[in-house]
Amino acid sequence: MNPKNALYAQSGGVTAVINTSACAVIETARRYRKKINTVYAAHNGILGALQEELIDTGREDPESIAALFRTPGGAFGSCRYKMQPFQNDRSEYIRLIDVFKAHDIGYFFYNGGNDSMDTAYKISQLSQEMGYPLTCIGIPKTIDNDLCVTDNCPGFGSAAKYLAISTKEASHDIASMCKTSTQVFVMGVMGRNAGWLAAATGLAATERDDPPHIIVFPEVTFDAERFLKKVQDTVNQYGYCVITASEGARDETGDFLSASTTVIDSFGHQQLGGVAPVLCDMIKQRLGYKYHYAVVDYLQRSARHIASRTDVEQAYAVGQAAVEMAVTGKNAVMPAIVRESDAPYRWSIGEAPLADVANTEKKMPMEFISKDGFGITDYCRDYLRPLIEGEEYPPYLNGLPRFVKLRKIFESKRLPPFSKQKVLEEKVLQKQTVCPADSGKHTSMA
Amino acid sequence: MNPKNALYAQSGGVTAVINTSACAVIETARRYRKKINTVYAAHNGILGALQEELIDTGREDPESIAALFRTPGGAFGSCRYKMQPFQNDRSEYIRLIDVFKAHDIGYFFYNGGNDSMDTAYKISQLSQEMGYPLTCIGIPKTIDNDLCVTDNCPGFGSAAKYLAISTKEASHDIASMCKTSTQVFVMGVMGRNAGWLAAATGLAATERDDPPHIIVFPEVTFDAERFLKKVQDTVNQYGYCVITASEGARDETGDFLSASTTVIDSFGHQQLGGVAPVLCDMIKQRLGYKYHYAVVDYLQRSARHIASRTDVEQAYAVGQAAVEMAVTGKNAVMPAIVRESDAPYRWSIGEAPLADVANTEKKMPMEFISKDGFGITDYCRDYLRPLIEGEEYPPYLNGLPRFVKLRKIFESKRLPPFSKQKVLEEKVLQKQTVCPADSGKHTSMA
Repeated sequence: MNPKNALYAQSGGVTAVINTSACAVIETARRYRKKINTVYAAHNGILGALQEELIDTGREDPESIAALFRTPGGAFGSCRYKMQPFQNDRSEYIRLIDVFKAHDIGYFFYNGGNDSMDTAYKISQLSQEMGYPLTCIGIPKTIDNDLCVTDNCPGFGSAAKYLAISTKEASHDIASMCKTSTQVFVMGVMGRNAGWLAAATGLAATERDDPPHIIVFPEVTFDAERFLKKVQDTVNQYGYCVITASEGARDETGDFLSASTTVIDSFGHQQLGGVAPVLCDMIKQRLGYKYHYAVVDYLQRSARHIASRTDVEQAYAVGQAAVEMAVTGKNAVMPAIVRESDAPYRWSIGEAPLADVANTEKKMPMEFISKDGFGITDYCRDYLRPLIEGEEYPPYLNGLPRFVKLRKIFESKRLPPFSKQKVLEEKVLQKQTVCPADSGKHTSMA
Repeated sequence: MNPKNALYAQSGGVTAVINTSACAVIETARRYRKKINTVYAAHNGILGALQEELIDTGREDPESIAALFRTPGGAFGSCRYKMQPFQNDRSEYIRLIDVFKAHDIGYFFYNGGNDSMDTAYKISQLSQEMGYPLTCIGIPKTIDNDLCVTDNCPGFGSAAKYLAISTKEASHDIASMCKTSTQVFVMGVMGRNAGWLAAATGLAATERDDPPHIIVFPEVTFDAERFLKKVQDTVNQYGYCVITASEGARDETGDFLSASTTVIDSFGHQQLGGVAPVLCDMIKQRLGYKYHYAVVDYLQRSARHIASRTDVEQAYAVGQAAVEMAVTGKNAVMPAIVRESDAPYRWSIGEAPLADVANTEKKMPMEFISKDGFGITDYCRDYLRPLIEGEEYPPYLNGLPRFVKLRKIFESKRLPPFSKQKVLEEKVLQKQTVCPADSGKHTSMA
């Protein structure tokens, strides 16, 4: 069989290590020249695939490809684009296959979260149905850590490490000044429906009674009275209170706290969101403590400067395994991280059918959350600890990490523009006006 | 002359490296046993000195003292406490001298900003007047970099490095997703009246046209129309716009933007502050772009994990020099950092009279700000670049930096409680209810 080309695409919110997986895909494919010819990367994820905007990774310097290993963000561009429901309208899927045909693409590597695994799965089904031989492999990625089957998700460990360190450092600051300055500090973190990132801040507590004193999880319905009492008790006991809160936390009515609810005028005008300012406002109104808050936002998912070595290694491993699965004839699968043991931490790469990963969501198990709902258990620590282990520092020049910007040379288009191009652009515009309350998947503001 | 004891106190907002200076003072003093006996540290800064809460640093393990080198926050406690104006009421100053007498303190090392240098200066004057021999040495510290005479301030370089890296990393994230997600990202930074920290984010731009595209300085009156036009032009040109803004930015009426002004209801209710959400709201209302914002708050002044090596070395050097000045008979001075050359960067320690540093404030010179008021010039880059040079990584255990918590063993009190104790406590309480719009010196929220 003649070698086929491959298409790699990044999807959804980027991470500190998604490019590490890209690096692995491209470098590994080069070792299988008899099976894989050119590796193209879709510009801006699946949108670029639909619009036939294909970057020829073979025209980048090998040093630039190697530097992807340590460059945060999505080097080829990613996107938030939900394809039409497969059952209603297959035209986008058919267009993708047309693009694949036009560029002799026999391998599709889709690097994303559960939505993307669903898309990859559907493409694999449709290509079979249409008699076009295509190997579809998913590559896991999300700071939210909410993919099923895999023990954890590349991208999470580095965000978790950044958040645990930030919580620890800020706590040293607050503890030293609480006598005359801030008593309450709140840090808002990403994670929508799953509290993994919020939980990770709990690792900052290396000794009993260490901060954070309160973690607000999306898995636990927020009870303002219990929360305020715990804040007050903590300040009474330690002189200060450090709180970390998931942007996905919801009150008893199911509304996001961050899209709150705190009535600040007689017309019930909602205040500018973010869970941290909402909690601070509540604390100030009810308890009168002086507060500060931090919203780390994109910093937590791009903090390559303090990436977890475990995470970087796993991000590379899943990219490499994806190519190895593809060239050994696997299809419609995703390399999954399998935990062999907690201590010493040992992991390997397994294989998850895309059908099992698609559109599912893994929340924190309740045995990971302490009884009072405001902390993590030792089970949770045992799970999280190895994921932030090790420091994978990038090289520096003039005090700044050396990241790479690619040349991005596009392959010539061979097809007429996608007839839905206009529709696509309209969808993009609509998307831009939607700002739900999380930040992992959309934005942190109302 | 018999050796005398020394008192070291931390003052004002803490930094990633103020404990590095503390480490230097204690370690250096041990080399001058013939002149310096015990080094006490005031608990919670000058408040502890007034209340006779003195920590005996000789009762900490030498390893713990050595670990101060890499521990952020203020290990002995710091405070925001403005003493009574000297000319109105000397009772607090006299109390300090009483405490010094009671504990045979002959050296006072005050580690802080311009207020603290003023206090140290007044104590040195009064002790002379009262015939009590006391050596007063200031040790510079502030992330705001606004002290006069010294070329730069320990604490600034590490905060600057953290902010420049964070800006660079977040920009990679935004650039990769702007097609379908966030177009505008705003990061609010500390710095009250001086734009040094905001300027430091400009170092993230290592090539022409790199982000940040707009820096909002406190030194430049904010003009909403010019700002919005620049945001729009930038999005049109690059597809996205990265903005960094000082919490100290003010509008044409002199009000802090962060204590804004944006009318969100017919009663003119002010929204919850922070310069970043205010700018985002303005952009959303007028230009409709999807935005995200980050408020790094205390994280920027405690980010020891990515401290600048230059900064750490200088923080140690000023602590060491302070003791060396003291034992060689200097008084009422502060070690100052003297820049010998930009490239290669060379610096030495000079000597600044406290009288020249006290209560002055160094803002950004106008030649450091680009003509349009939204960027930094090459002069500014040349000044800033060496200050973020080098990485001084702390050691890690289980994925987290190893910081130290001290035992804090207090010396027995020898004096009756300060008669103003009640007054002090009331002043502290009052202080806690004041929340101006900056975060370097107070809080970032209205």
